[in-house]
Amino acid sequence: MLFYDCSTAPSPRRARMFIAEKGLEIESREISMLKGEQMSPEFLAINPRATIPVLVTDDGTVLTENLAIAAYLEELHPEIPLMGSTAEERALVLMWNTICETQGGHAIADAFRNSNPHMKGRALTGQTNFEQIPELAERAFVRVGLFFDMIEKRLGQRTFVVGDSFTLADITAFVFVDFARVIKKRVTDEHPNLLAWYEVMKARPSASL
Amino acid sequence: MLFYDCSTAPSPRRARMFIAEKGLEIESREISMLKGEQMSPEFLAINPRATIPVLVTDDGTVLTENLAIAAYLEELHPEIPLMGSTAEERALVLMWNTICETQGGHAIADAFRNSNPHMKGRALTGQTNFEQIPELAERAFVRVGLFFDMIEKRLGQRTFVVGDSFTLADITAFVFVDFARVIKKRVTDEHPNLLAWYEVMKARPSASL
Repeated sequence: MLFYDCSTAPSPRRARMFIAEKGLEIESREISMLKGEQMSPEFLAINPRATIPVLVTDDGTVLTENLAIAAYLEELHPEIPLMGSTAEERALVLMWNTICETQGGHAIADAFRNSNPHMKGRALTGQTNFEQIPELAERAFVRVGLFFDMIEKRLGQRTFVVGDSFTLADITAFVFVDFARVIKKRVTDEHPNLLAWYEVMKARPSASL
Repeated sequence: MLFYDCSTAPSPRRARMFIAEKGLEIESREISMLKGEQMSPEFLAINPRATIPVLVTDDGTVLTENLAIAAYLEELHPEIPLMGSTAEERALVLMWNTICETQGGHAIADAFRNSNPHMKGRALTGQTNFEQIPELAERAFVRVGLFFDMIEKRLGQRTFVVGDSFTLADITAFVFVDFARVIKKRVTDEHPNLLAWYEVMKARPSASL
């Protein structure tokens, strides 16, 4: 297997954390987004959608989305389960992973890519360039606040995002909450449950890779 | 089990098609989005994020995202598989389902919700109201075109979105491609592969429910 990684971006960090939490060692190759290497003909031949992470399996299957990579590795290496242990739990992990992506990840990406001067002309990932929309950034800042509030409330009733076990949904939520620093949004004691969980997550060895 | 459906919206249609393709009969309840019933205290008590579809399982677990509902039903009723038959296939179904959601579904929703007069103040699903952003609608129209092009190219090399079998990814792609009518985007012979697949999909009994 070969894992295409990028040390500066949140999406590949999710896969990197998942691999580490699984205790797996997979050969990896760094694709520098700062140098624009995801747009090189070599990389586009692997993933024409120009996104990272990518996992190429032993039979040559190219997997390009975090969920696909996680589910594949979970199936090959079921212990320790990071995507639930019963049908209900597995469904809840997929549900909360989706909610954290769409309510959290997309909002933070919209805020960052539509407001940061370095992202001019790169308001979306992919091969096509899109101009920034300042109004979209404004809306996204509001949504990031709502996402923090939602997770705060949820963590008032349970240890992790789904329940009492650490899962993929915690990785997704943590990577996005942590990445919110690029839009100057940080976890503070205004969100005590979120802050306590965030500190626990940050202390996991997988979070410092 | 109890399935909360809405006959006029694309998201619940995806779950409805999946249930029908599985040959399952599940008690359902219509939530009228035209009447705003997803915002009623009764429905918000079930799903505080105010989205449809929702599946409440026999043990009372509330599943609110299409992927979670599909994966749960697939696990309980593995035949006929709609989410792949090997680890690689299962990962590819999740991957293409995600791509069709983010590149197709989100783009069509952005175009519709940010341009249609009936969607004023409702540019996003959920409990919070957001104003329309005309520039976002414009960008989304471009993205919908790119999505049609991508699926056209893909269907030039295979029968269905993932490979030679009909899967969840086809349901996702079909429902969004079909819903694009609300932004006056239709499949034409400019996209011959997409058009042929679209006609096949439309003829499935599950598509007319």
